[in-house]
Amino acid sequence: MKKINVGLIGFGTIGAGVARVLLENRQIIQSRLGAELKLAKIADLDITSDRGITVPDGILTTDANEILGNPDIDIVIELVGGYEPARSFVLKALNSGQNVVTANKALLAKHGNEIFAAARAGGVDFYYEASVGGGIPIIKVIREALAGNRINSVCGILNGTCNYILTKMGDEGAEFSEVLQAAQELGYAEADPTFDIEGIDTAHKLAILTSLAFATPIAFDRIHVEGITGIKPVDFNFAREFGYKIKLLAIAKLEEGQIEVRVHPTMLPESHMLAKIDDVFNAVFVNSDALGPSLYYGQGAGMMATASAVVGDLVDIARNRLNESLRRVPDLSFQEEAITPATYRPMNEITTQYYLRFSAFDKTRVLSRIAGILGENEISIASVIQQGRSQSGGTVPIVMQTHKAREANLRKALAIIDELEIIAAPTAVIRMESDL
Amino acid sequence: MKKINVGLIGFGTIGAGVARVLLENRQIIQSRLGAELKLAKIADLDITSDRGITVPDGILTTDANEILGNPDIDIVIELVGGYEPARSFVLKALNSGQNVVTANKALLAKHGNEIFAAARAGGVDFYYEASVGGGIPIIKVIREALAGNRINSVCGILNGTCNYILTKMGDEGAEFSEVLQAAQELGYAEADPTFDIEGIDTAHKLAILTSLAFATPIAFDRIHVEGITGIKPVDFNFAREFGYKIKLLAIAKLEEGQIEVRVHPTMLPESHMLAKIDDVFNAVFVNSDALGPSLYYGQGAGMMATASAVVGDLVDIARNRLNESLRRVPDLSFQEEAITPATYRPMNEITTQYYLRFSAFDKTRVLSRIAGILGENEISIASVIQQGRSQSGGTVPIVMQTHKAREANLRKALAIIDELEIIAAPTAVIRMESDL
Repeated sequence: MKKINVGLIGFGTIGAGVARVLLENRQIIQSRLGAELKLAKIADLDITSDRGITVPDGILTTDANEILGNPDIDIVIELVGGYEPARSFVLKALNSGQNVVTANKALLAKHGNEIFAAARAGGVDFYYEASVGGGIPIIKVIREALAGNRINSVCGILNGTCNYILTKMGDEGAEFSEVLQAAQELGYAEADPTFDIEGIDTAHKLAILTSLAFATPIAFDRIHVEGITGIKPVDFNFAREFGYKIKLLAIAKLEEGQIEVRVHPTMLPESHMLAKIDDVFNAVFVNSDALGPSLYYGQGAGMMATASAVVGDLVDIARNRLNESLRRVPDLSFQEEAITPATYRPMNEITTQYYLRFSAFDKTRVLSRIAGILGENEISIASVIQQGRSQSGGTVPIVMQTHKAREANLRKALAIIDELEIIAAPTAVIRMESDL
Repeated sequence: MKKINVGLIGFGTIGAGVARVLLENRQIIQSRLGAELKLAKIADLDITSDRGITVPDGILTTDANEILGNPDIDIVIELVGGYEPARSFVLKALNSGQNVVTANKALLAKHGNEIFAAARAGGVDFYYEASVGGGIPIIKVIREALAGNRINSVCGILNGTCNYILTKMGDEGAEFSEVLQAAQELGYAEADPTFDIEGIDTAHKLAILTSLAFATPIAFDRIHVEGITGIKPVDFNFAREFGYKIKLLAIAKLEEGQIEVRVHPTMLPESHMLAKIDDVFNAVFVNSDALGPSLYYGQGAGMMATASAVVGDLVDIARNRLNESLRRVPDLSFQEEAITPATYRPMNEITTQYYLRFSAFDKTRVLSRIAGILGENEISIASVIQQGRSQSGGTVPIVMQTHKAREANLRKALAIIDELEIIAAPTAVIRMESDL
């Protein structure tokens, strides 16, 4: 029986999950692969803590260099996380002719182009399924299954922490801060949740999906990013009245030769498949010319789900090794020469519908003044909800759904409206997407 | 630029879709594959009808043998449908060393084992993504992405016609026959809808998924199959009261070393992802040990969606040809020697919850007699809905949800109950699945 040796760097939660899958499912993996996928080495600075899993004697080391460049190790799994030393480890492996698997989206969003170049130069495979959507095989789907399709858009719920918080806020009417704290207690949110709740983690993943879908180099800094911290319980009530759900959405779409890439809270019609994704689950919705709409759903994080994606990559690379077909699939779905920087649509030029919640002092003619300013800026109103009673501070929420309008026009109108003496606080804005 | 020649046999709706994708998306496919995927020949008995697509001069032929065994054709696409001559065509291609792509689930359900043996013997690739779930890449997901997982169950909504009918019946309270007729007028149901509405098409697809998931040869005749013709509008109302939806479900699950394979109308909790799949859409829900629950959703039929899957297969095989890595992935997910006949659980031995709708004459003590007989057969009642008023013919529906019970016990109890003088018609039974 042939054998493919695997070295794991980073024995944290995901690393322990990968070890567990490789050891517990050794037999079934072998019966699929027709060869042994052997966990030969594990490197971590901490090799004494109990991970709840027994690994074979002698495979633990504190020295990553026992794996990196070791000619007996065919595939290196990088699960260190973060930028350094992860980047150096990955580059060293690739430059030594080792294949690499990672789950590190932050690394790819920042250094992906450099890493892909190193993989090409080294003639080796670099797989990263676990970096987007956890266990959901979205990268395989886009790179392989949809190879006949022109992709029009890729949208996703890519952060389980945010989706959990938004689901609970919607179900329970609770404030953001309360739900965040509960999520932290349950282990669904980190002690420092900034990357999650500010949308940065989602944007890392969107940067990768955008390249895969649209043949453009990874460009994290072109993504417009807004988090979920400004959403109030009352917004869920109004969303419901309009027949919408609120999700933190990653959106990449191609229209008239320009791509839009943005991460922000989004109201989606309740009938949309992405509106039906609750709790910590992730999902990616793809619209492509032949297949039409399709959706891929599963656990976007966690020890075992992420390990599933990592091991799927290992099997893929092992099959390439066994058949001497490394680099069978191009890193970013397209051949290198086809990857050229896309034209990005500036955020000011997008058009969408808007949910607007004005905090107005309870005075007469407020509505007509707001509507007037919106109209002067070419924003027309689709519907209005005005609650009769004023809230604390004597303000009353006036809620509107607009027809499609340009972001620049909206910003201009709100700059004027928010300065009016009849407006008590900055207007809350949530984009509404009905044609994704 | 390298070139892979493709021959298409069967220029019907799907065939025209495949030609359209190959011609219209030639450039983008090439930029992914790094080689040309060339439609070199199309064979059909009818080469004069307009398919709404212009194909290159000279590639149409009425003779399939211009493709079969032609050493210039690398990949043969079989879209003839049915058993013969599709089977002979596929075998001839495989035996001549040609790779084959098909969308033909009926052929695979009946002759799959013979065909896979021929592909192995010929050392060629045989791909069939389009045979299950139309454009949904479920076969790639199971064969490749989930390679690290032990699969516990695969369940799916695999027939768009049935899902459309059940969705409309639920939304509109209409009778089965009315909705079927409307579906036929819309082109969502065939003139002879037997294969769809009797669950046979769903079972063909389940036969394939079962083999992929559980390393057992294809065995269509082991599947218990019930269609949707017996479902009444009133059942949707009661389902709603219990918080359930009615779907035609394909279920394959492994428990205690036995597999259950069954196709029947199923009540699913409204919160289950499969309960949220409406209209003609298909979805497959997989439960596996590492990934946990995952779902794959899209159009399960239709010209372009099915073509998407066929072309995805072509690109996969082309990549294997270009890298000389044919037979890189085993046909049925597992190496040949690992595929052994499973132990099937007889239908009588399954345990599940049941929805029972009794048509009782409006007499006193009906409920206690029914409950008594159920109790004697070890079936306990979870809840009862008894409507006050009697319906036409003086009967009143008594509806129950049972706790988990053995199918054999239920059948025994119903054989007695349905003979009672107080029962006007055979009891309607729908299985309720809450742990899929």
